[in-house]
Amino acid sequence: MKQKSFLLKPEIRLIIYSMPFTITVLGSSSAIPTSTRFSTAQVLNVHERFFLIDCGEGAQIQLRRFGINPARINHIFISHLHGDHLFGLFGLFSSYTLLGRKNDLHVYAHKNLEVTIDHYRRYFGEGMTYQIVFHPFVAVKQTEIYSDKHMTVELLPLRHSVPVAGFIFREKPALLNLRKEAIEKYNLGIREIRRIKEGMDLTGTDGETIPNAELTLPPIKPRSYAFCTDTSCFSKLVPALSGMDMLYFEATFSEKDKKLAKITGHSTSAQAANLAKKAGVGKLLIGHFSTRYKSINGLLKEARDIFPETYAVADGDRYELKQERLGRHL
Amino acid sequence: MKQKSFLLKPEIRLIIYSMPFTITVLGSSSAIPTSTRFSTAQVLNVHERFFLIDCGEGAQIQLRRFGINPARINHIFISHLHGDHLFGLFGLFSSYTLLGRKNDLHVYAHKNLEVTIDHYRRYFGEGMTYQIVFHPFVAVKQTEIYSDKHMTVELLPLRHSVPVAGFIFREKPALLNLRKEAIEKYNLGIREIRRIKEGMDLTGTDGETIPNAELTLPPIKPRSYAFCTDTSCFSKLVPALSGMDMLYFEATFSEKDKKLAKITGHSTSAQAANLAKKAGVGKLLIGHFSTRYKSINGLLKEARDIFPETYAVADGDRYELKQERLGRHL
Repeated sequence: MKQKSFLLKPEIRLIIYSMPFTITVLGSSSAIPTSTRFSTAQVLNVHERFFLIDCGEGAQIQLRRFGINPARINHIFISHLHGDHLFGLFGLFSSYTLLGRKNDLHVYAHKNLEVTIDHYRRYFGEGMTYQIVFHPFVAVKQTEIYSDKHMTVELLPLRHSVPVAGFIFREKPALLNLRKEAIEKYNLGIREIRRIKEGMDLTGTDGETIPNAELTLPPIKPRSYAFCTDTSCFSKLVPALSGMDMLYFEATFSEKDKKLAKITGHSTSAQAANLAKKAGVGKLLIGHFSTRYKSINGLLKEARDIFPETYAVADGDRYELKQERLGRHL
Repeated sequence: MKQKSFLLKPEIRLIIYSMPFTITVLGSSSAIPTSTRFSTAQVLNVHERFFLIDCGEGAQIQLRRFGINPARINHIFISHLHGDHLFGLFGLFSSYTLLGRKNDLHVYAHKNLEVTIDHYRRYFGEGMTYQIVFHPFVAVKQTEIYSDKHMTVELLPLRHSVPVAGFIFREKPALLNLRKEAIEKYNLGIREIRRIKEGMDLTGTDGETIPNAELTLPPIKPRSYAFCTDTSCFSKLVPALSGMDMLYFEATFSEKDKKLAKITGHSTSAQAANLAKKAGVGKLLIGHFSTRYKSINGLLKEARDIFPETYAVADGDRYELKQERLGRHL
């Protein structure tokens, strides 16, 4: 297990108190779990709100092992309907009832998951203490499927043997912070402060304009994370993932097995790295490793030769993007 | 993790080369798994044939962690249809296809599991490489549901909020082993040897009878194991479990919470121990501990005060019954 905190870009200078934007890896194996790697699941913590991304078998066990309270999860995103990405749902559903959960649990997945959720409700859901709210989708184009005060989630259609979606998590731009001295200097009222925080310039009674940048601290850069697994690599992904701060992309196979990758609708480590490079992402996380490789060192080297900022994930790893202000010299 | 090998009874003297009769604990928590205890699952190895008993979430991961090849399992017994005893099935089913399993997989469970197996087949079973053969039961009386060369399995009706069965695994009596010197002394032929191995006396041409015990080694004692979980304790269990060499019995609660045990259809540690004492079993294994107890030391002490030969199981523990000859002094 490792914890990595990344600065976003070299040109960003000021580090401020950071609201979390952190990925915890719960499972990093491909279809078959091993004694050290569970099937795919991750948790994204955005400002202390927790989002479960895929839910392979044993995800609830890993949550406990890695110190995340399952009760804090209200939204679950399932990339596609292969068992290794969702067989942890039933156990989690059951534990929630045993723990007396009251909050709605929102599940976002391909529409065909509904019949499986209904199966759960009917045969294992007796005495459920909460509602599962299902948000079906069919990923045919890049679409926003979730939005709250702090962030949005978009679907990104991927290519596999069954319909599969990537998820793009984007922080919303925060309101600007006023410089303390500006409030006194210009004797700002509440209404003016609100408008300045939203980015407006200040117009004085004498008609003079004070540019917003003189009144506020440099804006906080919104952070972004994309999760893409069980997919081939294809060129449309480059613009879609352009400039992401962190990208998780499957690297099921090594380049020497690229034929196998093609046949099975998966990607090689080199393909993931080339995509990261072309899209200009900040960091690349790779995972979903085939159990055929005894060590993942080869997969990691293959990617780093192309894209040095690559990290091979392991269960329990944490990757944090620090909150930073855009680089205006002060 | 511990490995315990038990001699069956003090009066048994001779230890011989032992065919395995070994329990490996894969999960020992009650309904909610913890970071160290998975939900219920055990593997019984009888003469190198492996039987999975219950299949809580993550059972396939524990099999790998504890060095048991999942491919060696052909028979799965499910005590009842609560998720913490079966949510590991789907993952195991899927991995078998990915590993190219060919052998039939036999599942024994309450008849209502069929609809869930059908759900798996329909929505997650594409390309299955093997057949799941379902053996439905309704446990209303003690019945044999499995028999092979070496052993039998019986259902034992238990009492819980839903229909639940215990399983009794009994080794069959082995053929007797001839004393080497007897073959020469009496010039035995193949047909005579076979009959003597089955327990017959030898009648010579002069009408003299040689008792079987003079021709054979003391018989090997058949071993027995009973698995009882998610049940209240009730008096009918005493004769049913009488003389078992090893008994796994749930001890979800402490005696101080016996009202809770009654309401929820579970047992206390003291109840399990009293049952073991009255039934005169060899060893008692307790498990399925409620997560309300931070330490299980109290539960173990409570049982040992009544029945000293009690062991509190943990994930990864192995309990072996050695193969022994009945104690005739030679």
